[in-house]
Amino acid sequence: MYFDKYGPIKYEGKLSNNPFSFKYYNKDEMILGKPMKEHLKFSMAYWHTMTGAGTDPFGAETIDRPWDDVNLSGIDQAKARINAAFEFMQVMGFEYFCFHDRDIAPEGKNLAETNKNLDEIVDLIEKKMAETGIKLLWGTANAFGHKRYVNGASTSPNADVFAYAAAQIKKAIEITKRLNGSGYVFWGGREGYETLLNTNMKLEQENFARLLQMAVDYAKKIGFDGQFYIEPKPKEPTKHQYDFDCATVISFLVKYNLDKHFKLNIETNHATLAMHTINHEIRIAADNNMLGSVDANQGDLLLGWDTDQFPTNIYDTTLVMYEIIRAGGLKTGGLNFDAKPRRASFELDDMLLSHIAGMDAFAAGLRIAAKLWEDQILEINLENRYSSYKSGIGKKIINREVGFIELESYVFNKIEMDKNESGKQEYLESIINQYILK
Amino acid sequence: MYFDKYGPIKYEGKLSNNPFSFKYYNKDEMILGKPMKEHLKFSMAYWHTMTGAGTDPFGAETIDRPWDDVNLSGIDQAKARINAAFEFMQVMGFEYFCFHDRDIAPEGKNLAETNKNLDEIVDLIEKKMAETGIKLLWGTANAFGHKRYVNGASTSPNADVFAYAAAQIKKAIEITKRLNGSGYVFWGGREGYETLLNTNMKLEQENFARLLQMAVDYAKKIGFDGQFYIEPKPKEPTKHQYDFDCATVISFLVKYNLDKHFKLNIETNHATLAMHTINHEIRIAADNNMLGSVDANQGDLLLGWDTDQFPTNIYDTTLVMYEIIRAGGLKTGGLNFDAKPRRASFELDDMLLSHIAGMDAFAAGLRIAAKLWEDQILEINLENRYSSYKSGIGKKIINREVGFIELESYVFNKIEMDKNESGKQEYLESIINQYILK
Amino acid sequence: MYFDKYGPIKYEGKLSNNPFSFKYYNKDEMILGKPMKEHLKFSMAYWHTMTGAGTDPFGAETIDRPWDDVNLSGIDQAKARINAAFEFMQVMGFEYFCFHDRDIAPEGKNLAETNKNLDEIVDLIEKKMAETGIKLLWGTANAFGHKRYVNGASTSPNADVFAYAAAQIKKAIEITKRLNGSGYVFWGGREGYETLLNTNMKLEQENFARLLQMAVDYAKKIGFDGQFYIEPKPKEPTKHQYDFDCATVISFLVKYNLDKHFKLNIETNHATLAMHTINHEIRIAADNNMLGSVDANQGDLLLGWDTDQFPTNIYDTTLVMYEIIRAGGLKTGGLNFDAKPRRASFELDDMLLSHIAGMDAFAAGLRIAAKLWEDQILEINLENRYSSYKSGIGKKIINREVGFIELESYVFNKIEMDKNESGKQEYLESIINQYILK
Amino acid sequence: MYFDKYGPIKYEGKLSNNPFSFKYYNKDEMILGKPMKEHLKFSMAYWHTMTGAGTDPFGAETIDRPWDDVNLSGIDQAKARINAAFEFMQVMGFEYFCFHDRDIAPEGKNLAETNKNLDEIVDLIEKKMAETGIKLLWGTANAFGHKRYVNGASTSPNADVFAYAAAQIKKAIEITKRLNGSGYVFWGGREGYETLLNTNMKLEQENFARLLQMAVDYAKKIGFDGQFYIEPKPKEPTKHQYDFDCATVISFLVKYNLDKHFKLNIETNHATLAMHTINHEIRIAADNNMLGSVDANQGDLLLGWDTDQFPTNIYDTTLVMYEIIRAGGLKTGGLNFDAKPRRASFELDDMLLSHIAGMDAFAAGLRIAAKLWEDQILEINLENRYSSYKSGIGKKIINREVGFIELESYVFNKIEMDKNESGKQEYLESIINQYILK
Repeated sequence: MYFDKYGPIKYEGKLSNNPFSFKYYNKDEMILGKPMKEHLKFSMAYWHTMTGAGTDPFGAETIDRPWDDVNLSGIDQAKARINAAFEFMQVMGFEYFCFHDRDIAPEGKNLAETNKNLDEIVDLIEKKMAETGIKLLWGTANAFGHKRYVNGASTSPNADVFAYAAAQIKKAIEITKRLNGSGYVFWGGREGYETLLNTNMKLEQENFARLLQMAVDYAKKIGFDGQFYIEPKPKEPTKHQYDFDCATVISFLVKYNLDKHFKLNIETNHATLAMHTINHEIRIAADNNMLGSVDANQGDLLLGWDTDQFPTNIYDTTLVMYEIIRAGGLKTGGLNFDAKPRRASFELDDMLLSHIAGMDAFAAGLRIAAKLWEDQILEINLENRYSSYKSGIGKKIINREVGFIELESYVFNKIEMDKNESGKQEYLESIINQYILK
Repeated sequence: MYFDKYGPIKYEGKLSNNPFSFKYYNKDEMILGKPMKEHLKFSMAYWHTMTGAGTDPFGAETIDRPWDDVNLSGIDQAKARINAAFEFMQVMGFEYFCFHDRDIAPEGKNLAETNKNLDEIVDLIEKKMAETGIKLLWGTANAFGHKRYVNGASTSPNADVFAYAAAQIKKAIEITKRLNGSGYVFWGGREGYETLLNTNMKLEQENFARLLQMAVDYAKKIGFDGQFYIEPKPKEPTKHQYDFDCATVISFLVKYNLDKHFKLNIETNHATLAMHTINHEIRIAADNNMLGSVDANQGDLLLGWDTDQFPTNIYDTTLVMYEIIRAGGLKTGGLNFDAKPRRASFELDDMLLSHIAGMDAFAAGLRIAAKLWEDQILEINLENRYSSYKSGIGKKIINREVGFIELESYVFNKIEMDKNESGKQEYLESIINQYILK
Repeated sequence: MYFDKYGPIKYEGKLSNNPFSFKYYNKDEMILGKPMKEHLKFSMAYWHTMTGAGTDPFGAETIDRPWDDVNLSGIDQAKARINAAFEFMQVMGFEYFCFHDRDIAPEGKNLAETNKNLDEIVDLIEKKMAETGIKLLWGTANAFGHKRYVNGASTSPNADVFAYAAAQIKKAIEITKRLNGSGYVFWGGREGYETLLNTNMKLEQENFARLLQMAVDYAKKIGFDGQFYIEPKPKEPTKHQYDFDCATVISFLVKYNLDKHFKLNIETNHATLAMHTINHEIRIAADNNMLGSVDANQGDLLLGWDTDQFPTNIYDTTLVMYEIIRAGGLKTGGLNFDAKPRRASFELDDMLLSHIAGMDAFAAGLRIAAKLWEDQILEINLENRYSSYKSGIGKKIINREVGFIELESYVFNKIEMDKNESGKQEYLESIINQYILK
Repeated sequence: MYFDKYGPIKYEGKLSNNPFSFKYYNKDEMILGKPMKEHLKFSMAYWHTMTGAGTDPFGAETIDRPWDDVNLSGIDQAKARINAAFEFMQVMGFEYFCFHDRDIAPEGKNLAETNKNLDEIVDLIEKKMAETGIKLLWGTANAFGHKRYVNGASTSPNADVFAYAAAQIKKAIEITKRLNGSGYVFWGGREGYETLLNTNMKLEQENFARLLQMAVDYAKKIGFDGQFYIEPKPKEPTKHQYDFDCATVISFLVKYNLDKHFKLNIETNHATLAMHTINHEIRIAADNNMLGSVDANQGDLLLGWDTDQFPTNIYDTTLVMYEIIRAGGLKTGGLNFDAKPRRASFELDDMLLSHIAGMDAFAAGLRIAAKLWEDQILEINLENRYSSYKSGIGKKIINREVGFIELESYVFNKIEMDKNESGKQEYLESIINQYILK
């Protein structure tokens, strides 16, 4: 209806001049023994794609979608959006989507009414999912936008707000279960502080842990076996967000004995705001067996805020896919486009073109990463680089067979150490280029 | 000898125009029941103060100290510096100092010879300490400057380098013990990576943990009961340093079961490079019972590297001292001036004036923080702000007596939450100003 | 009516515990020969103070003012706000205010109707100004918020948008003239680009110059002799804003022969986003005879976006006032609080407390700066530091009496240069502290 | 001799697995009507390549080149390096190099002796240039490293230092002339300030202008007609460098009437330190007819200092070459590798591999940029995007035929503006990817 003129977007190959075609994403093409689409479980982010309006802190809406009909409001408008969303996903070939509770249905005068609204919309979503085969990658609750969360949700100094957040999240988990979501995400949008002058950080973090424990308990009670994720971000909207980066979140989860129940949902732009590369964050998660899902976007490293741009940098997509392949793939997670067309990309065309740009960038990155993995060029280099730990004194260090005294004896009278070897950074970068360009 | 003309630096009060006097630091004045000097265990950093030469990546030495006599070299020059250092500390009124092994004595052709050099210098230090009553706050090893550490020390891909680092640290702990150091610091200058393309981060971090465990074992064996510290820094010299910030280090220590044996040595400039305030980092450490010692300096937040400036910002010194008071004081640690006079502050006068600037800034900050603490103005605000967790539903949340179901019932039909209250940030900032200015 | 309970805010001195009093701002106190209020021509920023609602990119409104009555809308609500604004300014003792056209009156269905709305509100403002004696510091047009400006105003690729912006600014200048505004500001909110891939930067900048020339021509035609200002900002909302910083704006104005008609309106938070201190930017402007007015606020240097916080940092306010005093004072300009209470400071109390915090911080800064200036402590140091240019070879350099050949002869066989002197940075910083604290 | 085993590096095409071959740089291949090597006038930077030793602020040398023979020192070592440099350039196929005076010859006890050393080395260079056909792209003076420049060179408060800098630069221009350098660069390494508290910025900038005027005068006198360049950098080593970015430098040159005599030497890493993209800086220069030469390197945008890495990012090299093609090519300038192998890339192999990585990245970028230019895909989009200024009201705006009054009439009663069009950022980014990948 809304997307008739675009038809389903098809793979036409890298030489195509048709803007509304995939140049690299060929969903059924086999890569490393499975179809592209299983490597790249692309998900549409309901909030940006269906409700984003192009606002920024200095400007009003620029985007006016046909389904945001002026004659519709409340639950009716919400339903029109659901219809548009499933049509869009079918046109694009999306098999997954993600949402916040408040993206899909309007708030009522109290939680009872709000939940009733949600149920009505979830009925429709369920029907649409059955019709189309589209699946829910993960659900979540928006516990940061409403003014009640001005001082945080579970970390609010106001216990009533904690209670409300808990009740809201309860419902969000229930609908995620009902829709067979394979995961549920916690992004602590206001779980942080503005100034230490007024903050009891210890109590706030303990309360955050209490909320997560309640979620774990409740999921068990109702038999929700989807994966729980935490999504790190260092700052924005609050000055300091408690879920700063992967290392910080892992630390928090371990401290409160929650690490068995959670994995990480890692976002590229959040990684760079924390001054890390996205591949660093994925590696940290994978090394700690905490890799969950990926929010696929990119930031502008010359800007200091979350720009949530569509991912088009081939270096990033290549290295993300390489880390994922290296980690054995995402299990429950996928690649959710937590990305919004630029404010100036306000046309309906841009809605498709921006997703195509992101999907093609990831497909190209996957192809390159797969070749790198097949050739094992980086892995062989690693094997060689660390080979001194495979035998001799290195092996004894690994096996904890030696201590300071033995090691001192080993080096005490040596004039020279075994030769160090170059890290070859420039050469390795040129290899990556060769894989991208050839 | 070198500092005769300056005499001992004395407290002359805030109206003094004598540059070579303290305006705020009055060491025996009682503050919150103990003398200033016990709150402010100032320590001279041997490396910057005694061996710093004003170099930067674009320029050669600007500083030429009288004890760096052209007629001296090697061990003799090292001894001249020790003499100068103790004279300087006496003139300034320092009761503590800190050093790296390689600051105080030259390397020989192998570790055996290097350690012999060290022993000869340590003999002299021991004698000077006995004469002056000056104490060692902490010792450490420089396992980052020499080219053998080009790819890291314990995180080097070269097992021989690990062995060498272990042996070097063994000796550094021994001399710290001999000099009754109250602590020993690990700053992982090269424990990090330049590019993930060539890095086995997991193995490197495990090896880092292995080294720390060896240190714990060896300390126990030789009866060194000083406090071990880790000093976080996010980047520089390596692109990514494993000890990124307090949260990351705590995570690492807990993971490898080392947290009982370590506390944190927190540096202001390292905090800001990690995009945290120094008071945030101290709070994180204190909340986790990991507060150890402080490297007192400051960075320039408009620059992107470690400038190690003398701390002169009264807001910082006030909030640092407030957090320390709030945490019950530093136990084994102190305030070590890991700061260097600017390249252009190359005169001998500047060596004194910069330390005076830093000591006075901390003394003023202590006075202000102590008043804030005595009046409990921030603490009372905190009590009130979080009072909803003292009774009713809040108390049940804290006591884990309620879960999602009970909380949903609590809020389900409510139209309005209990009113949120303002965070009062601007007002609290004006209060801080009033305490600084009055 | 709205502020009855606060009464006029009075100076009670630095020991007062009354939050609703000035501790430092004593408007008639004489400083350097004129009353404080003439040094500190404080202005209320209509947009933040009267229409700000506490939103951020992740959250809805938190602020609900009594004059934003649900029973009012459009022009009636606008009038209620005007009444509240003048009441607030009287309570606070503001003698100046600033506004954007769109802050004060709602847009109609076309410019004709919009201008009619404006006229109706301006009638009311004029009446209020006459009654209260409050003056307009400067007016401006909001040519960045509406979706028509999505690609810029005068730098839009759409000539119709240029035309609309011109017409809107024409009207804004007219009402500024009518209200005897002493200046008119151009902040190029969307005058910049998002990506060079689609940008003809040269044409856009030429068009920007064309618009400014039209403004100059029109002001002359209607006899508006208020000062035109440009307000630099490096980024946000656009990726690159053409008015990056003071140096860039001066370059632009000179290039297009506009520099005689404009001065700069300098904002602290914009300065730091451009990686400059505010005092640097003021110095640049003053050295080029372009110092106009100041937007008084502050940013958080650990965050990467425009936070527009109330200015509470005494170092900043001291150095701003010092540079202003040094430059001979602001002529047509003042100190406009382009600052908003934090999202969590949503109570009516905070509206007053945040302005008090800012006014007191500037008053304290003024007192300190005035003392520094009276004592000439920094100026005497400068005189001495550069004295080598007062005679001998230095004087010849200044007078352009020597060139490379003479200078080579001068140094050719010298073994040593005249001794360089220390920059004394730490000592100077300690002097500033002494002036703040004593 | 030193590079025998590498032989001349040859083009082997994109499928080659030989690390010591070019995959993309095929110097005589015709691109847009001229051979690659004329588009890509690659230059070796003598300082990094021949004298760089892998140091950083926390570590000693890691690089030990065979020509830095322990048996050689002073002028003899300098000569060995010259021999090695020319051998290296021949092996790599470099036709250009750049140097600072102090890179190539040691300082003597005074300028007379230093210049004598220089002359001896320049004799050798001249001979080598004649033998090999290698040319000097530009020369420069190092007026920042020596301690005499601690407070700046021409901006020093010490007039003797100004004199010395002038004399040093005189000689550097003379040898550049003698060696037929096509340009001469001014990088104001210490022309800036550390703290405004001790700085007379106005005098310093005037003195900087005086020095440049002397250089212009002297060049004229001796008939040096090479191009003078200024190289912008915002910070490092000084807190604020006067030559902040292209816009600032142009402003400065225009102010002092020097713009006719200078163009810009633009460095990628300096651009990003100033929060600009390199293509932005080139565009600014080109739009102002100030594009001179390019220092080809790259920084790490997650780090805050000048890393001077070899350029390997294909997006950057593509967009740099696109801007250069668009501007009609570099006239006197080239692509100088102001880049150093990472500290850990200390082997002789890395010296070649890092240059190959950079040259290939630029060659690949050139090929892609040339295709983009041939297809005019971006240019056609620009034509269309700004077409409203080709006729009607837009044309009148351009021709300055209309002012505020006419434009107000034009829009006054319109309900809607002509429709704005999407900026298509995501689509354009996908096009760039398609050109890179296909």
